[in-house]
Amino acid sequence: MPRLESTIARIGGLDEAAVTTARARQARLTKPPGSLGRLEEIAIRVAGIQARARPEVSRKTVFVMAADHGVVAQGVSAYPQAVTGQMVGNFAAGGAAINVLARCVGAHVVVVDMGVAAEAAPRERLVCRKVAPGTQDITAGPAMSRRQAREAVQAGIEVFEEELGRGVQLAATGDMGIGNTTPSAAIIAAFTGRPPREVAGRGTGIDDPALARKIEVLERALEVNRPDPREALDVLAKVGGFEIGGLAGVMVAAAAGRVPVVIDGVISGAAALVAAGLAPQARDFMIAGHLSTEPGHRAALEHLGLEPLLDLGMRLGEGTGAALAMGIVEAAVRALNEMATFEEAGVSGKTDG
Amino acid sequence: MPRLESTIARIGGLDEAAVTTARARQARLTKPPGSLGRLEEIAIRVAGIQARARPEVSRKTVFVMAADHGVVAQGVSAYPQAVTGQMVGNFAAGGAAINVLARCVGAHVVVVDMGVAAEAAPRERLVCRKVAPGTQDITAGPAMSRRQAREAVQAGIEVFEEELGRGVQLAATGDMGIGNTTPSAAIIAAFTGRPPREVAGRGTGIDDPALARKIEVLERALEVNRPDPREALDVLAKVGGFEIGGLAGVMVAAAAGRVPVVIDGVISGAAALVAAGLAPQARDFMIAGHLSTEPGHRAALEHLGLEPLLDLGMRLGEGTGAALAMGIVEAAVRALNEMATFEEAGVSGKTDG
Repeated sequence: MPRLESTIARIGGLDEAAVTTARARQARLTKPPGSLGRLEEIAIRVAGIQARARPEVSRKTVFVMAADHGVVAQGVSAYPQAVTGQMVGNFAAGGAAINVLARCVGAHVVVVDMGVAAEAAPRERLVCRKVAPGTQDITAGPAMSRRQAREAVQAGIEVFEEELGRGVQLAATGDMGIGNTTPSAAIIAAFTGRPPREVAGRGTGIDDPALARKIEVLERALEVNRPDPREALDVLAKVGGFEIGGLAGVMVAAAAGRVPVVIDGVISGAAALVAAGLAPQARDFMIAGHLSTEPGHRAALEHLGLEPLLDLGMRLGEGTGAALAMGIVEAAVRALNEMATFEEAGVSGKTDG
Repeated sequence: MPRLESTIARIGGLDEAAVTTARARQARLTKPPGSLGRLEEIAIRVAGIQARARPEVSRKTVFVMAADHGVVAQGVSAYPQAVTGQMVGNFAAGGAAINVLARCVGAHVVVVDMGVAAEAAPRERLVCRKVAPGTQDITAGPAMSRRQAREAVQAGIEVFEEELGRGVQLAATGDMGIGNTTPSAAIIAAFTGRPPREVAGRGTGIDDPALARKIEVLERALEVNRPDPREALDVLAKVGGFEIGGLAGVMVAAAAGRVPVVIDGVISGAAALVAAGLAPQARDFMIAGHLSTEPGHRAALEHLGLEPLLDLGMRLGEGTGAALAMGIVEAAVRALNEMATFEEAGVSGKTDG
């Protein structure tokens, strides 16, 4: 069986015994039942994902995947394409927002060149899995071949599994790619059936005329390519991107490896739709880190049935929202593990309802 | 001048030079302008609070103040009064939710007995500033004398200033006190003018009949005491609590000391109303950590003009929401300080609007 299909076949469900034990422990901890709100629910789900009633998330990795997009020729971004490669250099040097926020939560950053147009100098903290130096322009035909779409997803699986070998316990996804809110919006439109005007946003900060052009570009891309939402690899190949395919691979492999994966913004949301299209059960292993201001992100999360943890008006990508959310997930898990029970602390319980 | 008035007199405004320099630096960091959303705004405000263009928040303290409330005789809580003292023991032993969450964000916890009914054994991590062993029942008269109200606020000022001497750079407030959502709701009703039914909530988890009783208790307390919202010490004395006064003192002293203070849930929100009543300019030094599920909390934050950072369905108190938010504030400040600029990283800027 090819790597993609064998990985999907390994995805199980949440471990019910771990969920039940974790839930029972929550009820005995020194707090009114339910008073930690979503922290309680997250810790219980992580227990189910890891099949451990006392889960562990101290070893954390943010996967930042970068690639370029032929559609930038249509003027959909406020920044030149060269920025993708330049930012990959910034990631490798530790100076980008994701480097700082990952340090704040004690996470390791793995940067992957999935298809950057520029040649990157080999660097210690950069993994090269370049499928091609950028996709084709989706207004003229498919972004990539079906073979390349599969190659991108499988590369993501392999990159994740290397980290799994190093013991990763909590993953997050992030992206870099000038122009990549356009293929992300196209993927979201394809899977949710929403029109481009509802899922297109300002990305890095385009003005009104550029936004109108972006909506036309999306309409053309969907018209020219007619992606089939019942076939996730078809959607990825026709209107996607290499980093989006790689991130979908990370999510599928995380589910197979029973590692919770925190989803970042709109690009990761599009990748999550591809991952859920490939393996619907992968959704149980995803945690929505935050809500981006890009309108397509909310549409993607609603389609996936995921509720974001944070809503801080962020729209940077790189995994920044997911990294911050990793801190919340770790706090949730540590509260479950480290709080005293009523018996241990000698604290009285409830007297009435 | 008494300690309270001299502290209020020292409160200044945000430092405009630091704000301007921090804002200019945000614009040069390697990200689209505004893309870190509220993190950018928070980091700029902390710069203005500390009067440092590159602020520092690594030294963090959560002030958890505990006291008992005579109004529990009216059956407004789901837990017996003994739990206040038992939980203080749990804090001192490091087993409560606030201990775990403070460890997650690298914050120190200072636990203060402001008026617990039970005698606590002296413990290394427990500060005793007991004004009295619990307040009086507010349905029958004032919670405390005017002198006690002033004593509680001044105790909070002194406790904060001891930590300031140890170099605290970011503060958070938290509370423990069985029954204390009732005085908090009374304070919020007094300052905002909203009726008890709009600001009363289920606290630790009371049922419908108990909630109806709590609303009646609040109506009676406001009717019997007639607190004057133009006089913050009058409101505190008539319908407040010792821990609420202490927390208001922490907030006033933090503003005077130019230390940002992260406000927790509904009890801290009531204390913030008292602090802002004593010193309206103290509001600029407050950061709303999270939104509690208690309805009075939203009313308090709206009245203060504060927007919460987190909304995680929490309602535990102890400073748990504020502690989590400290992690977000620190990430915001570190992004401002540690990210590379476009020039440093050799990354191209925007090409169009």
